[in-house]
Amino acid sequence: MSGGLDSATAFAIAKSEGYEVVALSFRYGQRHAVELTAAAKVAEALGAEDHRVVDIDLRAFGGSALTADIAVPKDRDESQMSSDIPVTYVPARNTIFLSFALALAEVTDSRGIFIGVNALDYSGYPDCRPEYVAAFRAVARLATKAGVEGRGAMIVAPLIDKTKAEIIELGARLGVPYELTVSCYDPSDDGAACGRCDSCTLRRKGFEAAGIEDPTRYTD
Amino acid sequence: MSGGLDSATAFAIAKSEGYEVVALSFRYGQRHAVELTAAAKVAEALGAEDHRVVDIDLRAFGGSALTADIAVPKDRDESQMSSDIPVTYVPARNTIFLSFALALAEVTDSRGIFIGVNALDYSGYPDCRPEYVAAFRAVARLATKAGVEGRGAMIVAPLIDKTKAEIIELGARLGVPYELTVSCYDPSDDGAACGRCDSCTLRRKGFEAAGIEDPTRYTD
Repeated sequence: MSGGLDSATAFAIAKSEGYEVVALSFRYGQRHAVELTAAAKVAEALGAEDHRVVDIDLRAFGGSALTADIAVPKDRDESQMSSDIPVTYVPARNTIFLSFALALAEVTDSRGIFIGVNALDYSGYPDCRPEYVAAFRAVARLATKAGVEGRGAMIVAPLIDKTKAEIIELGARLGVPYELTVSCYDPSDDGAACGRCDSCTLRRKGFEAAGIEDPTRYTD
Repeated sequence: MSGGLDSATAFAIAKSEGYEVVALSFRYGQRHAVELTAAAKVAEALGAEDHRVVDIDLRAFGGSALTADIAVPKDRDESQMSSDIPVTYVPARNTIFLSFALALAEVTDSRGIFIGVNALDYSGYPDCRPEYVAAFRAVARLATKAGVEGRGAMIVAPLIDKTKAEIIELGARLGVPYELTVSCYDPSDDGAACGRCDSCTLRRKGFEAAGIEDPTRYTD
């Protein structure tokens, strides 16, 4: 659970399917701790059984794009977004996240791992594609004692083929508190969203297309 | 690189194939820090370009077998070892390790990830089987920017179908300093191996079958 709107919606879907949900977040050198604060608020508002935060130490990998201070691109249109893998890409991030989720799922005897990846509106990330999720699903089945014994967690990616507008419509029906979610890659010091990074652009267009008011406070 | 003989041998194989090798170890709540000290010594002796140690924080997962103080089984024969998944199993361990290796491989522009898993002498672990490695290979190809661009790291498991004796013979030919490796799950305070846990049993039998003297100091 990142604090953004996709994982919040994925959580609400799991809940609506009858799961008791344990939220899992990672502290991995994000630019803004505000994301984790948002994740905690959303988890509580949506009725998480528990919210675990795992520290991932990528400092041992040295000066890399993982933790480097790169400028966040602004004012790109959707064709620019989808043409390249963006600089905000973090190597193997979803694989690392899903691996920890797999361990936690086994420890908590969970039946599902819900991940809010989305291929349509963010095709730039390789580890958000359906073929990636399918491949990890095979790993999950083979990697663990629970999987071998047939009681492993299924990897569920309920948003994978939805547009941002469809995600927001579904989440709004399920009562996702979007006012608590944070999407911006580059918020100002007072917490306002920049309104111009890829994530803000997609969020704004999504709310607009869904005909739902975006509760976010934007600088621009 | 765990500090044991399999990962040391896998390292030597990578080196013999012409790779410049970056060793990767994890501090994840092992019983004995002596393993990481051994890993550092072996990496240096085998000529690692670098040795990275990543801290994995599994404490957030609470009271689980991951970090619990369970008795290490002793004096089991090989049929007992292979019949069940042992209590020393750590949920999703190799998946977590390989995920970090995948990130490091991308950051360092590496072409191979060598892992010393072995299906024959340790069939109890689900994430040491060839089908598991094959599944993770598919994930690696799809998960990363490097993979998508066709310059991703191949997952190589050179020991997967070898007996312990074959591994030791091969390693001895390649100059692996087995006197620096540590296999015991339950060493005494002075660093002597117990000689009776599954890992000691397999190691002793392996050296015996290879006709090579085991440099380990055993208590029993």
